[in-house]
Amino acid sequence: MENLKQLLAGQAAAAAAGIISIIFVLIWVLNYKEGLAWDGGLAEFNWHPVLIVTGFIFFQGMAIIVYRLPWTWQCSKLVMKFIHAGLHLIALILAVIAMVAVFDFHNAAKIPNMYSLHSWLGLTSLILFCLQLVLGVGIYLIPVTPASWRAAYMPLHVYGGLLLFTSVIAVALMGITEKLIFGLSNPKYKDSPPEAIFVNVLGVLLVVFGALILWIATRTSWKRPSDQVMHTLHTNGEGEDSSKVGPVLSQLSDGSDAEPFGDVRRRSNKLDDEAN
Amino acid sequence: MENLKQLLAGQAAAAAAGIISIIFVLIWVLNYKEGLAWDGGLAEFNWHPVLIVTGFIFFQGMAIIVYRLPWTWQCSKLVMKFIHAGLHLIALILAVIAMVAVFDFHNAAKIPNMYSLHSWLGLTSLILFCLQLVLGVGIYLIPVTPASWRAAYMPLHVYGGLLLFTSVIAVALMGITEKLIFGLSNPKYKDSPPEAIFVNVLGVLLVVFGALILWIATRTSWKRPSDQVMHTLHTNGEGEDSSKVGPVLSQLSDGSDAEPFGDVRRRSNKLDDEAN
Repeated sequence: MENLKQLLAGQAAAAAAGIISIIFVLIWVLNYKEGLAWDGGLAEFNWHPVLIVTGFIFFQGMAIIVYRLPWTWQCSKLVMKFIHAGLHLIALILAVIAMVAVFDFHNAAKIPNMYSLHSWLGLTSLILFCLQLVLGVGIYLIPVTPASWRAAYMPLHVYGGLLLFTSVIAVALMGITEKLIFGLSNPKYKDSPPEAIFVNVLGVLLVVFGALILWIATRTSWKRPSDQVMHTLHTNGEGEDSSKVGPVLSQLSDGSDAEPFGDVRRRSNKLDDEAN
Repeated sequence: MENLKQLLAGQAAAAAAGIISIIFVLIWVLNYKEGLAWDGGLAEFNWHPVLIVTGFIFFQGMAIIVYRLPWTWQCSKLVMKFIHAGLHLIALILAVIAMVAVFDFHNAAKIPNMYSLHSWLGLTSLILFCLQLVLGVGIYLIPVTPASWRAAYMPLHVYGGLLLFTSVIAVALMGITEKLIFGLSNPKYKDSPPEAIFVNVLGVLLVVFGALILWIATRTSWKRPSDQVMHTLHTNGEGEDSSKVGPVLSQLSDGSDAEPFGDVRRRSNKLDDEAN
């Protein structure tokens, strides 16, 4: 149970860091900048950081660890897959709107599009995220997909998911840097006005959120109990799918924490519907 | 052997991306910027990107995957630990010189230090990297450290190492963004002069390098053969240490690639000196 407490504490900390980040980005645009509007001006641009932090970072992070929320372990795996995919879909939609906002603003202000490293990596991340979602749905939610394909694609699905999540945070940090340089003139960014300090703290919060999500997602002992059991048993048929995210996301750990949660696992195992 | 070919191809690709990145950063400062000098001016600043890319990124990346180079599998684990630590030490020394260069330049040019998110995250990464190295040497290279401490610290050692490596690349991308905005005036960054495109490509190369290192470091089947065997056997005494990096770094994968390399493992197992 000690391990369960740590898991819950980690998830609470991640949720707190994510929610505080959203509050910070809202305060930034509403208090320090021009607010929010859809008018082709700076207030439209401001939807970009708000929707990226809320959608592309917070929702994506939650989608990654959703299998690890203990109160979901009594839900069927299929339901959890839909929630996992659904949260990613919300992240994608918000990220697309965020991109539209910045292109609209650039076009209205006659600022070139796609010149910066931030824009190159950001758009690449969005395209690969879209591809990742399409492949994930096609391979893990369409029943006719062969089990062998599911197993073969799994390492890439997990690695790609974590890499994209990390990349989006890195791209956001570059975006914050750009905006603070371009958006602060008197005083400038280098003069450290309150807005600069405040938004630097937002950047730190995003790193903390990302680090917590990656920690939670890569602990062996925190995976969905049925996934641990099913992964060990190597059951045939659809059983391969039970190793979908839990064991894969979670194996970046050593054996020292490989066998906790025995009680929870036994309790939850019967409740899990592995059918997909 | 198919898997061994993939490992070698991955390592060759990573080395190529890293070396091309170093060539790119050298061309940037020598061809597009003021060259290299130690004079308090812009040519001294230029040591900063050169040493960060060479030391803090390339050497750190190589240090992370050094246990996975097949031609090192006949070396003793102790020798490999010293090489792992030594490469990290080189990375640290170059990173410290890189920091000195930028502080020197800022002080001479009356530019404030430590105002940007890039500087906050960069200095934090350097301090944590130093802490990671000290703890790593203290726990894994000093013989008197209890085996239980080694096992208990391992998840944090591996997670911290990969997170720091990723963070350093993210911070470098922010630094590239800053330098392109500040360093280009006529034409500006938004006008996409050749230097802007060239350095954006450098940023993309750093991401590719990072992605390859993380992929190699997290494949189950690519860990040092003796580590795979020893991890499975859960040997007592010093045996815990054999799980040092291989199994931990490598478990972000599913069972589908968990059992290759049987031939290599059997061949190499006798050669490995697990004494520490």
